[in-house]
Amino acid sequence: MIIDCHGHYTTAPGALQSFRDAQLSALKGAAAALIDDPRISDDEIRDSLEKAQLKLQRERGTDLTIFSPRASAMGHHLGGEATSVRWTRLCNNLIHRVCGLYPRNFVGVCQLPQSPGVAAARSAAELERCIRELGFIGCNLNPDPSGGYWNSPPLTDRHWYPLYEKMVELDVPAMVHVSASCNPNFHATGAHYLNADTTAFMQFLTSDLFKDFPTLRFIIPHGGGAVPFHWGRFRGLAQDLKRPPLEELLLKNVYFDTCVYHLPGIELLCKVIPLDNILFGSEMVGAVRGVDPRSGHYYDDTKRYVDALPLGDAERERLYWLNARRVYPRLDARLAAVGLLKSA
Amino acid sequence: MIIDCHGHYTTAPGALQSFRDAQLSALKGAAAALIDDPRISDDEIRDSLEKAQLKLQRERGTDLTIFSPRASAMGHHLGGEATSVRWTRLCNNLIHRVCGLYPRNFVGVCQLPQSPGVAAARSAAELERCIRELGFIGCNLNPDPSGGYWNSPPLTDRHWYPLYEKMVELDVPAMVHVSASCNPNFHATGAHYLNADTTAFMQFLTSDLFKDFPTLRFIIPHGGGAVPFHWGRFRGLAQDLKRPPLEELLLKNVYFDTCVYHLPGIELLCKVIPLDNILFGSEMVGAVRGVDPRSGHYYDDTKRYVDALPLGDAERERLYWLNARRVYPRLDARLAAVGLLKSA
Repeated sequence: MIIDCHGHYTTAPGALQSFRDAQLSALKGAAAALIDDPRISDDEIRDSLEKAQLKLQRERGTDLTIFSPRASAMGHHLGGEATSVRWTRLCNNLIHRVCGLYPRNFVGVCQLPQSPGVAAARSAAELERCIRELGFIGCNLNPDPSGGYWNSPPLTDRHWYPLYEKMVELDVPAMVHVSASCNPNFHATGAHYLNADTTAFMQFLTSDLFKDFPTLRFIIPHGGGAVPFHWGRFRGLAQDLKRPPLEELLLKNVYFDTCVYHLPGIELLCKVIPLDNILFGSEMVGAVRGVDPRSGHYYDDTKRYVDALPLGDAERERLYWLNARRVYPRLDARLAAVGLLKSA
Repeated sequence: MIIDCHGHYTTAPGALQSFRDAQLSALKGAAAALIDDPRISDDEIRDSLEKAQLKLQRERGTDLTIFSPRASAMGHHLGGEATSVRWTRLCNNLIHRVCGLYPRNFVGVCQLPQSPGVAAARSAAELERCIRELGFIGCNLNPDPSGGYWNSPPLTDRHWYPLYEKMVELDVPAMVHVSASCNPNFHATGAHYLNADTTAFMQFLTSDLFKDFPTLRFIIPHGGGAVPFHWGRFRGLAQDLKRPPLEELLLKNVYFDTCVYHLPGIELLCKVIPLDNILFGSEMVGAVRGVDPRSGHYYDDTKRYVDALPLGDAERERLYWLNARRVYPRLDARLAAVGLLKSA
């Protein structure tokens, strides 16, 4: 089985964006609360997926996608807490409907109702609702709700601890994932995303967060940003800072996906990062949508790069799905419920 | 010959830092203008280099370092323009003395007197002084004088054009290099530096800067941040954005150094980036000072990694010094002046 740990609902029916546009316009005028929820039929949901994510799953030979709302649309910097809470619930509920319609293809991960200056504790209720009521298995955590001005506390600050306590209680991981950038310095998918990945890793490296939360787990997407390319730098920085070796310091808690869109990058990732810390992912349909004229294949068809690696069968199984089951323990029950795994 | 394009005077005599401490204290009290310039003897300069950069040059077998003031100490966010102007001139003058004492080992690159909110044009005079009067061959340009809050215009904004005009007139390149971070989210050398590299590259990718300045040249240090690891992503983003291929769009203007502190990283860099766009660099004595227990050698001894690559002699020559002569055209005159190159 091949589990793609990183997919967003980037193709949601237009009514969702129409609602969002109306909600954000209303911030400046009439009350946003008066705007109706978007009406989206099951057929519209099916249509939005059949020609995109489901088609690509079939073509590429992947099975299940761990699926969350569109990251760039989370827009935690837009409006205040009430705006974010309503938008987040709508987006998560839509993911729940997707997973209900295609339970063998998608399992849910939620967006959180973060908002600049608002306590992280206030995201815990939505996390609990999504896990306990909607059957989700994890969340996306935005380390920069400002959208590119980085004025929240680092992920290792006690600000975030109430949310981490809930994550630990529910035994779910978070993918560290920023949203759109409103800072003209940062292109979202070309700079802000990768910078956030690198930033989060270095925050973890310099703190004792995982002493306080030994079972807390994070996935750093986009192959870990700049981290594997500079693995020697990070090993050396840890050493200079008198920190323990990286394996001991954070590799029981921090994982990387394979969203790196060329073979040399995937080769490097799998050479320097222990295989148990790598989860297969593609982020399709996402940041890069074209076909590479050099290969004739989609840039984001990361399965082709992984298949090209000289891995043994057992190693490939870990990377393709066994690691995901370890990092997302609630996955097994979802797989068992739809017959993809024998129940224990 | 081996030219290291990336060295900072991180070991400057203590009187320099004492001056800086006094200058920054005076911001809050008595006039900084009353503080005397630091007194540093030639012997102190020799002593600061003989046991550090010069010793490492000899041990590693590199010849000449393109040398600039300590990047993390530029501190453009501290004080205002007057603070920055005085500090910058002092630091640059000290580099000039280093190059005078060891003309076969060091050639100068200047810091600029940047300050948040101050026109980039106001850095042009110090650039011109350093190039014409001190014999320097380039500058370091900080894309984020705020120190981690990223509130200046992108490098592709017309804000920077007056400085670029001076760079073109003088035919000197800039290394894109941030300074210390005062944002608790960003560790300086573990996140801020690498993020700035990635950010600058994506700014160049999305703009027509090099149509306006066809001969403007930038070195993106630290191996280009996350860029080579994600080369497929950047190629794909350019394609999705209907930009020209990267070779055509920016590889006549943008270069990467080899400050990547492990062999797999250097292998990737030289596999995906055209060799003509790579300049040898180590940033010693810099971000990572330890010895890798796995190899028994310094992490930042990047020559060992380059030597391990299966390059032909001609390729190695380009990477080790011929590319640097192309990117820093004023280098030839310096080399000729000390007999390292026959004059034309």
